[in-house]
Amino acid sequence: MKTKNLPRYQGILSPVVYRDHGIDLLDQTLLPQQEVVLRLTRVEQVAEAIQTMRVRGAPAIGVTAAYGMVLGVENEGPSASLQQMERIAEELRGTRPTAVNLSWAIDRMLQVFRTHEAQSHDEIYEAMCAEARRLHAEDIEANRRMGGFGAELLPEGARILTICNTGALATGGFGTAYGVLRTAYETGNLDFVYACETRPRLQGARLTAWELLQDGIPFKLLSDGAAAYLLSRGEVHAILAGADRIAANGDAANKIGTYGLAVLAKHHGIPLYVVAPTSTIDPATPSGASIPIEERDPHEVLAPREVPFAPRGAKAWNPAFDVTPAPLLSGIVTETGVHHPPFDFRSLGRP
Amino acid sequence: MKTKNLPRYQGILSPVVYRDHGIDLLDQTLLPQQEVVLRLTRVEQVAEAIQTMRVRGAPAIGVTAAYGMVLGVENEGPSASLQQMERIAEELRGTRPTAVNLSWAIDRMLQVFRTHEAQSHDEIYEAMCAEARRLHAEDIEANRRMGGFGAELLPEGARILTICNTGALATGGFGTAYGVLRTAYETGNLDFVYACETRPRLQGARLTAWELLQDGIPFKLLSDGAAAYLLSRGEVHAILAGADRIAANGDAANKIGTYGLAVLAKHHGIPLYVVAPTSTIDPATPSGASIPIEERDPHEVLAPREVPFAPRGAKAWNPAFDVTPAPLLSGIVTETGVHHPPFDFRSLGRP
Repeated sequence: MKTKNLPRYQGILSPVVYRDHGIDLLDQTLLPQQEVVLRLTRVEQVAEAIQTMRVRGAPAIGVTAAYGMVLGVENEGPSASLQQMERIAEELRGTRPTAVNLSWAIDRMLQVFRTHEAQSHDEIYEAMCAEARRLHAEDIEANRRMGGFGAELLPEGARILTICNTGALATGGFGTAYGVLRTAYETGNLDFVYACETRPRLQGARLTAWELLQDGIPFKLLSDGAAAYLLSRGEVHAILAGADRIAANGDAANKIGTYGLAVLAKHHGIPLYVVAPTSTIDPATPSGASIPIEERDPHEVLAPREVPFAPRGAKAWNPAFDVTPAPLLSGIVTETGVHHPPFDFRSLGRP
Repeated sequence: MKTKNLPRYQGILSPVVYRDHGIDLLDQTLLPQQEVVLRLTRVEQVAEAIQTMRVRGAPAIGVTAAYGMVLGVENEGPSASLQQMERIAEELRGTRPTAVNLSWAIDRMLQVFRTHEAQSHDEIYEAMCAEARRLHAEDIEANRRMGGFGAELLPEGARILTICNTGALATGGFGTAYGVLRTAYETGNLDFVYACETRPRLQGARLTAWELLQDGIPFKLLSDGAAAYLLSRGEVHAILAGADRIAANGDAANKIGTYGLAVLAKHHGIPLYVVAPTSTIDPATPSGASIPIEERDPHEVLAPREVPFAPRGAKAWNPAFDVTPAPLLSGIVTETGVHHPPFDFRSLGRP
């Protein structure tokens, strides 16, 4: 695989990097068959990339939106006002409703603009650029810490089932749930990974498989419907998943299919851990019932990658996420450690 | 849709028909984009068609194998011996291991050969031809009866989730679980169908959608992983599934993913009914543990319809079926009525 020209931050693969007043963004819709790095210099391009899932994964879209806000200040030029920046923030925020990291990153960037509003354009730009890079670096650091905390939960010779992609591609780098696999493999503690292909967008088959191959971790893909049979065979020690938004009570929104895996995990007495940075936790969302679930184009189900499987005239229901109620989670791993149920994140981030 | 030239038996769509010393077989691997009817005149062609899933669905491959045995007698000519017919039986039996209808139909045809062995070739041929057509007609009649019994289980305005294809295409005609939907719709009792796309072979997206469109039944497809979220919304009254083999204790092998749906059904308090003719029940198989589970080419997962989704070098695990333990079934509908748990089919078919 020709991985030489892929974006890197702090020496590791990152789906998005800011350099020379523009964003290098690896187009994940073309992976694994094509490794194309796009060059984005306009906020509209960033919004399009998030909306069409050229970049996806809650932490990765947070980092991308932060850099998008930097482009916003550049696009507006010396006359950039708070009002203009708030409009840009709304444009980016509207691209995907479920992941809270997007709003969290945008708010953080808006705050920097507000703090430096009275200063020169160059000073504002520099401050926002530094903040986006800091946010990016913090995400990678959080992932490394989660990797360590999560790996401690796994038995020796662990055989793990995972869903979607939670690796370098889904984050600022290194990965959340995948970061745990990475850490466990580095310490010789990981035996095998089963990766759900994750319809409709096939992030497991396309992206997780791509990362696992590069890391040399032994794995097999499976159809999402085969997970129940796999679990019944007693060959899996734990299920690891990421999250797109975690409510104050611990209910966790993640890729469609995660909730089903959680019910199956409970039925088979297998733990399911959610691995996500605290930026994914939204204390303002009391429970999963308040999390907006994005429904995407039915075309993603009917004709994956433009190949029509279903007959013309067929319709599809295409929710991109589901919510796993907190009681079905064995733990939530963040960069501060492992949180055990019952969860209470209401006071998170408050003094 | 141009459905004029499709095979018909007793006036209704059938995936396979015997006429003029050959089999007309609708190639289901090409549906719904192409409606191609193959002409088979050799046993090897029949074996290939079953193995590659040009015809699939437990009852349909039973009917096909019965006609295959007729071709066997014709291929062998006047010198056809019991030994030769037993070799042909083994060739057909070896094509797919899980569905018991295949063996059941072949054994029935072998028995006819044995009974008429001393007679002329023409008499043997006529007897076998009549037996295969009788078996085919009995399957359709069984489906119609199951349709009636099953429809009585559904509430008014039923919203039903189903998996794989259990319609005309999976049987001699009319369908098993789909036959129940058909009957309920005809009587105005069916409101909506949700059809799991059913990876890896997408029988839901390709075949069930094709039948639902022709019948004008309102439906939506969904990714298999979305079923859990759908059930949690309380919009589904029951799940209907077919079966490929039912053990004496009621454990039921069916398309991969059915077991997961059964666990989810239990979790959400929604009934799951298996609909299958008694030819699918194998009293000689004590429990699901004795049912052989076919594992098919990983390519079906990695590159659906020859479109490579996964990166080169990726491996996949591809079990075609799973077993739902009897305690997770709310009932088994056969042509004799609705069987309620606990099930005991040990004395089935015995005097």
